[in-house]
Amino acid sequence: MDRERLQKQVRFILETDKLKQVLRQNVVIGTKRNENDAEHSWHLAVMAVLLSEYSAHENLDLLKVIKMVLVHDLVEIDAGDTFCYDDKAREGKDERELKAAKRLFGLLPDDQAREIWELWREFEEMKTPESQFAACLDRLQPLLLNYNTDGHTWQKPGVTSGKVYERNAILEKAAPGLWEYAKEIIEDSVRKGILKR
Amino acid sequence: MDRERLQKQVRFILETDKLKQVLRQNVVIGTKRNENDAEHSWHLAVMAVLLSEYSAHENLDLLKVIKMVLVHDLVEIDAGDTFCYDDKAREGKDERELKAAKRLFGLLPDDQAREIWELWREFEEMKTPESQFAACLDRLQPLLLNYNTDGHTWQKPGVTSGKVYERNAILEKAAPGLWEYAKEIIEDSVRKGILKR
Repeated sequence: MDRERLQKQVRFILETDKLKQVLRQNVVIGTKRNENDAEHSWHLAVMAVLLSEYSAHENLDLLKVIKMVLVHDLVEIDAGDTFCYDDKAREGKDERELKAAKRLFGLLPDDQAREIWELWREFEEMKTPESQFAACLDRLQPLLLNYNTDGHTWQKPGVTSGKVYERNAILEKAAPGLWEYAKEIIEDSVRKGILKR
Repeated sequence: MDRERLQKQVRFILETDKLKQVLRQNVVIGTKRNENDAEHSWHLAVMAVLLSEYSAHENLDLLKVIKMVLVHDLVEIDAGDTFCYDDKAREGKDERELKAAKRLFGLLPDDQAREIWELWREFEEMKTPESQFAACLDRLQPLLLNYNTDGHTWQKPGVTSGKVYERNAILEKAAPGLWEYAKEIIEDSVRKGILKR
């Protein structure tokens, strides 16, 4: 056994424990507690297992999608969660996250640092079937949670149905069946008064 | 799109949100907050991605291992977390969990209910390479967390190094490299006085 290699892997595993302390904007259903990034990432992975049939691409690499959603938010350990509807907060996000990726993934043995780096870049660039489907899950999950918590996050300043449509637009191309469903949820939310038109 | 099928899948996805409220015995590193099952399951999945090279079996189906760790604790939504070192609490555990599996997995379309059921059964029976490796991760993760939180859970009544060795014994056969490492952690914990001999 390569002792140094295992030490690096364990060091990274312990560091990633911090993802459990990075809070998101939405709350856990039935509570007033903000969801954290680790819980969110787990939920996306479960959704990947169950919803891959809705991908517009027939030969989706499910393992890659799952790996991607498991690690997609790790950079927020250093960079923090950026509210997707806050344009001001988004300034400098890329730079902060790039720096975080270098530090965090750099804890791993080189081959694994490269693998996680590439998964993260692929997710961010959203050009491949896997990253596009992963992005769909990352949009649909908070939509479902907000819909089931009286539009919790949607009450924040500046959030409108137009912005939510925009945020979820990737679904139209990458998971058309889920897009139809998402549109219904958005319209029903406006009707119920939990999302501004 | 099969609307009824998607409704069932979404119903299940919303129900699994409750896993974020099932508390485990150990705490998140650097906090006094108990870890929950969703965070734990996410952490195991990340570990599966990084540590599969330590499996005693060369042709491990990594996707299956990951699916297994993602869903292995879902039954605790109904059955609750059972402290592994509390023999009394373990009474009736199987029955409680079986009932929970029937209700929860039964929310899904039949084919997916079957898939998740089989993943859970395989995990519980620990007979295949994938379920044995998944079990290794499920033992190693709390070991690492307890070692890095001054032996938090090990301070509870009845926990001794002998019990911890017993709990981690699956590692010897299914992931020998990790077993060597786990033994060092256990011995060091006894030396530091955070785990009773």
